[in-house]
Amino acid sequence: MGLIVQKYGGTSVADPERIRAVAEHVAFTRRHGNDVVLVVSAMGKSTDNLIALAEQVSSTRPGREMDMLLTTGEQVSMALVSMALADVGIDAVSLTGDQMGIITDSVHGKAKILEVKADRAREAVAEGKVVVVAGFQGLSTSNEITTLGRGGSDTTAVAIAAALGADSCEIYTDVTGVFTADPRIVPQARKLKRISFEEMLEMAGAGSKVLALRSVEFARNHHVPLHVRSSFTWEPGTWVNAEEPSVEDPIISGIVQDVNESKITVQSVPDRPGISAALFEPLASANVNVDMIVQNSSADGKTDISFTVPKSDLQVALGIVETVAKSIGAAGITHQTDIAKVSLVGAGMKTSPGIAAKMFRVLADEQVNIEMISTSTIRISVVVAASATERACQVLHRAFGLDSGEAYSAPLPDRK
Amino acid sequence: MGLIVQKYGGTSVADPERIRAVAEHVAFTRRHGNDVVLVVSAMGKSTDNLIALAEQVSSTRPGREMDMLLTTGEQVSMALVSMALADVGIDAVSLTGDQMGIITDSVHGKAKILEVKADRAREAVAEGKVVVVAGFQGLSTSNEITTLGRGGSDTTAVAIAAALGADSCEIYTDVTGVFTADPRIVPQARKLKRISFEEMLEMAGAGSKVLALRSVEFARNHHVPLHVRSSFTWEPGTWVNAEEPSVEDPIISGIVQDVNESKITVQSVPDRPGISAALFEPLASANVNVDMIVQNSSADGKTDISFTVPKSDLQVALGIVETVAKSIGAAGITHQTDIAKVSLVGAGMKTSPGIAAKMFRVLADEQVNIEMISTSTIRISVVVAASATERACQVLHRAFGLDSGEAYSAPLPDRK
Repeated sequence: MGLIVQKYGGTSVADPERIRAVAEHVAFTRRHGNDVVLVVSAMGKSTDNLIALAEQVSSTRPGREMDMLLTTGEQVSMALVSMALADVGIDAVSLTGDQMGIITDSVHGKAKILEVKADRAREAVAEGKVVVVAGFQGLSTSNEITTLGRGGSDTTAVAIAAALGADSCEIYTDVTGVFTADPRIVPQARKLKRISFEEMLEMAGAGSKVLALRSVEFARNHHVPLHVRSSFTWEPGTWVNAEEPSVEDPIISGIVQDVNESKITVQSVPDRPGISAALFEPLASANVNVDMIVQNSSADGKTDISFTVPKSDLQVALGIVETVAKSIGAAGITHQTDIAKVSLVGAGMKTSPGIAAKMFRVLADEQVNIEMISTSTIRISVVVAASATERACQVLHRAFGLDSGEAYSAPLPDRK
Repeated sequence: MGLIVQKYGGTSVADPERIRAVAEHVAFTRRHGNDVVLVVSAMGKSTDNLIALAEQVSSTRPGREMDMLLTTGEQVSMALVSMALADVGIDAVSLTGDQMGIITDSVHGKAKILEVKADRAREAVAEGKVVVVAGFQGLSTSNEITTLGRGGSDTTAVAIAAALGADSCEIYTDVTGVFTADPRIVPQARKLKRISFEEMLEMAGAGSKVLALRSVEFARNHHVPLHVRSSFTWEPGTWVNAEEPSVEDPIISGIVQDVNESKITVQSVPDRPGISAALFEPLASANVNVDMIVQNSSADGKTDISFTVPKSDLQVALGIVETVAKSIGAAGITHQTDIAKVSLVGAGMKTSPGIAAKMFRVLADEQVNIEMISTSTIRISVVVAASATERACQVLHRAFGLDSGEAYSAPLPDRK
């Protein structure tokens, strides 16, 4: 007898038929001897519809009231799912974030979970009930209803799994798992059976949309094994966990592309201390999410600084950078939106030098120009022209042995 | 400086444009020196849409989960109205029924308000804020979210007005007030400037849809003056209050028709004690709302019993009555759905005998056959053929002086 937390995303509860399918699957999970706690997102596009409604009503839209509005989406889902469970003979009880004891900080629209007081859910499970929780929401320490921001339902599920000591947290979505690359771009992409928390974190950071970065962080910190799978096929998906990598694991787990970034370059900046701070502090204050930063000093005491920001932050960022550029005596600024970031992610990289060199060679052979480079211990990201995205992903997928399913083995002593 | 509770029904917050109009009107009310607490219904048809969705998902639909579902409708409204208020520079705070301290019993779908713990609202008003409350909902003594049933938002508003000691409770709707008759049936119908609680109760009981009966009862019991008016024209409407009637008041305040009743007759029932109980107890147990009852004993020891029930309860009622009719040895049962109830309501009736006689004469002159009669101290109701409804209302409206606006003065000593 185990306890499984199941999270169903918006597409999994998009209409009455899908909601009834979820109820059937919960019944199936129960017949296999497991207790179940569900976390549900808002139906389909309902959150987007609520936002559109708010935009028609108001230009100010205070965060507190936006949270009052948006939390209704998950509340509708949880009630409907509970009713569907009643139809298949399962005693279910729905709980809002408040009722579930999801305590957050007071930042409306992107609150952070501070604590989960899971007593009410624990008692309900002990009474043999299935608990259906509204994802994405909580109650702040100042007693206000909050939302966790996009991807918040995944985080809700992981936090509840951690609080209840669940055996695993299943994330049901509209894809069958985590893939070696985006199958729409690389047809040979394969579903991974397993990936480590660290690799999943890098993939999420590199632009993978399968799991929200915060939920993976939370799962890693609280040792909650995740199972990403499809509510359309119900087949086994991808496990995300903390298992030690084995020699059978490929060095490269996957390739991730991100076309939502844009690039800003500040030209001929005087190369002296404090310049970077002058540039990036105001961007941070404006909540602009700066990703890659490249700076090359030249001999004449001047330097170009380039960095990427999400396309959605570009206008705000340009406004700030123009002001700063003048004040620090830069020659000017340029920006590009026709770029893409392509990343290789793999835990095996730590112990396999030469991956970066091979990546650059493969892209060069394909005439793909690299505009920026950044690396972590288990990720290499390059910025290329947007038009080269597909080609870059495809050649890298093949070159690193992901097409065939065989591990890429670099010719290195410690991997032989 | 007064405190006004304003309740906006579904048509008053049906779309973004109407929501912004509500915000403007609240600003207008504030400029006139009043504090305002709003109670809002769900937007337009959104409650009906949620019910339809539930019916597609589930055939059981547990009451607790229906309440979880339906309360989202008012939550959406209150958030949007608060955002619109922010746009016109008003500091507003929305409160769910739970947050407003609306404490109810535990009957899901038709909970009764037990208490209003208005501290949070009182504090917010003291801080100069406008409070926007979700109507129709509360928190039960067992900590569950409940709904008050249809018309519940009116009751919410009156209960809050009573708890806060508001100067008045304005009920904004899609008509401009309470009329002497339904203007769609009697074009000469006029808006009443004032009506007593007792008359309004009788009108609601007789089928008037302007105010929910429960909310009028609550207002009377807690001495809350009501002002029924339109959110489309904003003109002064009808006051419902406890003022003593003056000699200028008409004897008859209005005529109300109700075409939602049906009539059941149990034929040739043995005329002995206990028969009525045998018939009406099982109907009450099944929550069938029996309205008028007529029984005439005849010389042969047999009697016909006729009564009316809402058309929506007819099938359930017939099932019960068929069983009972057999067990008590009745000859058979018949039923009619092509009937209407027409009622005259007026506090002046108490002191003016002869109203009933005049009513029957007027209808007889118009060849309208009366099938059933029931009376209270300030109401006379008759059941007529549905096809005669309009004619009956029109001739009564004229005969009792409502067309012209002059009070009907019966030729009686105590009114001279």
